[in-house]
Amino acid sequence: MTSRDTHNRMANAIRFLAMDAVEKANSGHPGLPMGAADIATVLFTRYLKFDPKSPLWPDRDRFVLSAGHGSMLLYSLLYLTGYEDMTIEDLKQFRQLGSKTAGHPEYGHASGIETTTGPLGQGIANSVGMAIAERKLEEEFGSELQSHFTYVLCGDGCLMEGISQEAVALAGHLKLNKLILIWDNNNITIDGPVSLADSTDQIARFKAVHWNTIEIDGHDPEQIAAALEAARTSDRPTFIAAKTVIGFGAPNKAGTHKVHGSPLGAEEIAATRKALDWEAEAFVVPADVLDAWRTAGKRSADARKAWDVRLDAVAAETRAEFLRRFSGDLPEDFDAAIDAFKKKVAENNPTVATRKASEDVLEIINGLVPETLGGSADLTPSNNTKTSQMKSITPTDFSGRYMHWGIREHATAAAMNGIALHGGLIPYSGGFLIFSDYCRPSVRLAALMGIRLVHVWTHDSIGVGEDGPTHQPVEHLAALRAIPNLLLFRPADETETAECWQIALKEKHRPSGLALTRQNLAPARKTYEEKNLSAQGAYELVPASDARVTIFASGSEVEIALKAQETLSGKGIATRVVSVPCVELFFDQPEAYQNAVIGNSPVKIAVEAAVREGWDHFIGPKGVFIGMKSFGASGPAKELYKHFGITAEAVVAAAEKELA
Amino acid sequence: MTSRDTHNRMANAIRFLAMDAVEKANSGHPGLPMGAADIATVLFTRYLKFDPKSPLWPDRDRFVLSAGHGSMLLYSLLYLTGYEDMTIEDLKQFRQLGSKTAGHPEYGHASGIETTTGPLGQGIANSVGMAIAERKLEEEFGSELQSHFTYVLCGDGCLMEGISQEAVALAGHLKLNKLILIWDNNNITIDGPVSLADSTDQIARFKAVHWNTIEIDGHDPEQIAAALEAARTSDRPTFIAAKTVIGFGAPNKAGTHKVHGSPLGAEEIAATRKALDWEAEAFVVPADVLDAWRTAGKRSADARKAWDVRLDAVAAETRAEFLRRFSGDLPEDFDAAIDAFKKKVAENNPTVATRKASEDVLEIINGLVPETLGGSADLTPSNNTKTSQMKSITPTDFSGRYMHWGIREHATAAAMNGIALHGGLIPYSGGFLIFSDYCRPSVRLAALMGIRLVHVWTHDSIGVGEDGPTHQPVEHLAALRAIPNLLLFRPADETETAECWQIALKEKHRPSGLALTRQNLAPARKTYEEKNLSAQGAYELVPASDARVTIFASGSEVEIALKAQETLSGKGIATRVVSVPCVELFFDQPEAYQNAVIGNSPVKIAVEAAVREGWDHFIGPKGVFIGMKSFGASGPAKELYKHFGITAEAVVAAAEKELA
Repeated sequence: MTSRDTHNRMANAIRFLAMDAVEKANSGHPGLPMGAADIATVLFTRYLKFDPKSPLWPDRDRFVLSAGHGSMLLYSLLYLTGYEDMTIEDLKQFRQLGSKTAGHPEYGHASGIETTTGPLGQGIANSVGMAIAERKLEEEFGSELQSHFTYVLCGDGCLMEGISQEAVALAGHLKLNKLILIWDNNNITIDGPVSLADSTDQIARFKAVHWNTIEIDGHDPEQIAAALEAARTSDRPTFIAAKTVIGFGAPNKAGTHKVHGSPLGAEEIAATRKALDWEAEAFVVPADVLDAWRTAGKRSADARKAWDVRLDAVAAETRAEFLRRFSGDLPEDFDAAIDAFKKKVAENNPTVATRKASEDVLEIINGLVPETLGGSADLTPSNNTKTSQMKSITPTDFSGRYMHWGIREHATAAAMNGIALHGGLIPYSGGFLIFSDYCRPSVRLAALMGIRLVHVWTHDSIGVGEDGPTHQPVEHLAALRAIPNLLLFRPADETETAECWQIALKEKHRPSGLALTRQNLAPARKTYEEKNLSAQGAYELVPASDARVTIFASGSEVEIALKAQETLSGKGIATRVVSVPCVELFFDQPEAYQNAVIGNSPVKIAVEAAVREGWDHFIGPKGVFIGMKSFGASGPAKELYKHFGITAEAVVAAAEKELA
Repeated sequence: MTSRDTHNRMANAIRFLAMDAVEKANSGHPGLPMGAADIATVLFTRYLKFDPKSPLWPDRDRFVLSAGHGSMLLYSLLYLTGYEDMTIEDLKQFRQLGSKTAGHPEYGHASGIETTTGPLGQGIANSVGMAIAERKLEEEFGSELQSHFTYVLCGDGCLMEGISQEAVALAGHLKLNKLILIWDNNNITIDGPVSLADSTDQIARFKAVHWNTIEIDGHDPEQIAAALEAARTSDRPTFIAAKTVIGFGAPNKAGTHKVHGSPLGAEEIAATRKALDWEAEAFVVPADVLDAWRTAGKRSADARKAWDVRLDAVAAETRAEFLRRFSGDLPEDFDAAIDAFKKKVAENNPTVATRKASEDVLEIINGLVPETLGGSADLTPSNNTKTSQMKSITPTDFSGRYMHWGIREHATAAAMNGIALHGGLIPYSGGFLIFSDYCRPSVRLAALMGIRLVHVWTHDSIGVGEDGPTHQPVEHLAALRAIPNLLLFRPADETETAECWQIALKEKHRPSGLALTRQNLAPARKTYEEKNLSAQGAYELVPASDARVTIFASGSEVEIALKAQETLSGKGIATRVVSVPCVELFFDQPEAYQNAVIGNSPVKIAVEAAVREGWDHFIGPKGVFIGMKSFGASGPAKELYKHFGITAEAVVAAAEKELA
């Protein structure tokens, strides 16, 4: 327990580091770190279980700054508590190119940054995922190895974003009692007072989704401590509404939107130094204060050592498995199992929808890889994501491995990010490809962070049929391929589906999405090949010497390409077919390979039941594109393919026309 | 008032039309229409103000089926109440190619379909926009011309989606008391009971955002009527939680997820006929029942005539303005004003950020076009969307024209759709381009519906600077250009900004987005031209005979292209520059024009601070692209441009290398 004066000086250290760094960068948000400094000080000096010497300790408490614009709060805390890779020099480099201290916290830039935040609401949903992961792993490995809290600090903006409702409703439903959400209730947004746009009774809102709720003065250390104490023993997740003054301490600007997103200015900083009785110069933390912080940073070292002892004491097999799971390595026999599956497929050559092919692969994967956590955003019967091993998780029973996420695509994706970030589990979920739009901000963040998870997106084209254009993706393949570092797979048959799953799970630093069909597809590959051909992104499926026509296609349209190839070859027109399961991986290949696959045939045709954007890279601006130029329509799938002219006949006709 | 028996038979007519149509299509969702038939019957026969003979009557009540999968409910109602363009034949064509009766309600397919729904939650937010429009127009034109209710029927899925929270929080804040949301509380989703994924106390949730709440038995006509009566006199929006049985009437499947999204099957339909004592064959509505419905459809004919009389009675100027507003035509002097603005710009040639240029144009537009309704998702000082005419709208004062939407991009965009659909207003809003991801589903629906509205998306590239990669769009231009029917503008200077705004507002059937810079830009065009060059999508900004190099660029990178052109020309290398403010409009141009603009220079270079996807159409796969290959970084904007190699020097070097 620290005296009030010590507390104040420790909190003020955060305030001055934040305002000095923002001032030096001439850019940033000083208001939140200044307002939330008391909360953070109590949390980090008295409750948060963390060890700066062992930042990846699997059983550490997670702290998520959902209000990512207040990044200097987090950077200050990391420096003050003694994370070795966060120095005072790093703080001085706030918001400068190449620094660890980016404008918003970037996962991977420095230890202790648990997730990338900034786009509002994401951190709340990430933390729900972390709390799910904790509970699941505690169920699996016991509380001696996994038993920690997840704390998240959010602002008004996080709570206004719809994703927050999805996330907190799910957390309340699942009774994630180790999740503690602290609301920095400062009543100010960029436009001005919150009352310009909102009058939500947040306490009532959280009660409605069965959270424990507490209201406190966010500047009173004892109220903060009491709230955290209560939260930690709650049987439900806890929402702490902490009334704060944004820019606390700045005599002329505190409590106004002027401190939200702009430097205070030299004059106001000087006035704040005076008001808070802080004599140290910019970026200087008085020795006694720094000592107190560093001591706080060592608080959990013993707990961490005790945990090491407990880890050593568990059965060797359990220990090995726990460590493997947190290393992110797959079980050793993973590749062999996929290989065996491919062999079996080549024996049967089934005509199946790729969503069903995915289920078949998952049946193998889930039997072998215990860390997969499956689910669907209320489309389980359509997504085929629930295999025989996947018992449903319920609020009272986390022994299952399947999440009913509800009709909440955005929180699903963001919580999956949180699960992946937590470690020990590999989340995959199910949804319709069309609804990738609902969760795009979280998919982007997964790509930016470079984390492993898999989105199973079924119903990937006009092949959806009768549901019509609101449910038929046409622009989504292009839009997802545009996201850097995301692997968007569109396999053509069961073999490619297995290969794509194999790549997705082995890829530790990129998220994946699988675009899968509703409708059945004839097999594209009929013979077993050991090599994962899909890993090249695109490959020659049907070669032809001196080809006059090359047809590029992905997914369900490979079937069309193959039919067209057969007809053209029958007419004596040498025709190649290139399957393109993953454009991003193709671009990773050596240029010579890319050139060889694209080839030099005089006629190049791409077939995809989607917009042309992106295909000019394969066929050139003068190439023929057989696909969609508009939204889809409601009707039986086969009729739609004819209606929109995406048929083997159309490909043949186009090829002949070009050659004429 | 109808007797209970008549009510039951009228409701059963809906049930049987729905189950018969789904059965015939062998596809669709019978459960919701069957469960909500009693609610719909009471609403349409006793409360809803509508006239099938005058479906576009501006003062009609709006009815939105947010749970769009229950489309047969709406189609049945339109047929039964006597909309002439919805025949029994149309119902038989449910979900068939080319029919009006698509899988989900499609705006424009038939009268009485007020909005396209299906993606869940959208309808709730649309209806909030409609209620905003009604209140604003009542304020402007008086209750004699505008005074109607907006009713919306939603399901569990709509309420789970985050967009619903954004929308209802805003509606509660604004006290939209003519908005009445009826929840078809049937406790069933596709995966099974709602309890698999949610346990929200919806009544408490709506109370927390200051709604009037009522709980009823959704099969009791008098409870339904009493709730609607109470809702219509509330001083706040009303949430009616109506407990229903999904698939009501089906003896073996009602109340289960088996009736949610699949045909009932002949056997169960026969059993339902028996259970509900319904002897009519499929698609036959007994004459007495049809008569009763048709009579109900005429209920508001007198009210509509009285409204015509009132319209005739108002001042001629008011009448003309009201009718102009609902016709969607702009004021006559609109083009002249933009033209005068362009002339003035050409005199000053200001160096400004395009967000500021947009503000300058809006200052002219908002002075002249009273139907614009501006706003921002809490980024007013950054988006520059609030001009001198734009007083803020508050819960108690709708005389303003500016919405503080709050940090709710998704509901903002969906409510803007609702405002545009309502008629009489043209909504535009502000946000960061990066957050177009947060509202992408609604942007897509605007494009699908073909409605007019403008998204002002500022901070459109790494030019954002210090905020870093979470706030720097790199894939968003490509992703938005991929959406059919959306005009994505990226103007290069103040002149192009004016031209793009002109096009956006004149385009009645396509939504627009303007990607605008945070940073200042030198003028690209320095002389006045009467023609709107941006309307061609791309045009030759700097010609060169026998050009050896063509540089294509959009927005902020046109400045770079021009600098490079100057250097190259100085070196004797003939170089053209093509400005590309709107790819979608370029593709609308005649092929000859497109070919001429793309040209035949041996070297083609595209410059855009974004991903390459889409640019191969201009430069070919072997062309040089100067842009982004990854996410951005946190740092000052100018340093970022250098760091990522997006500079005039890089363009020059690339051109010389290609020519060497």
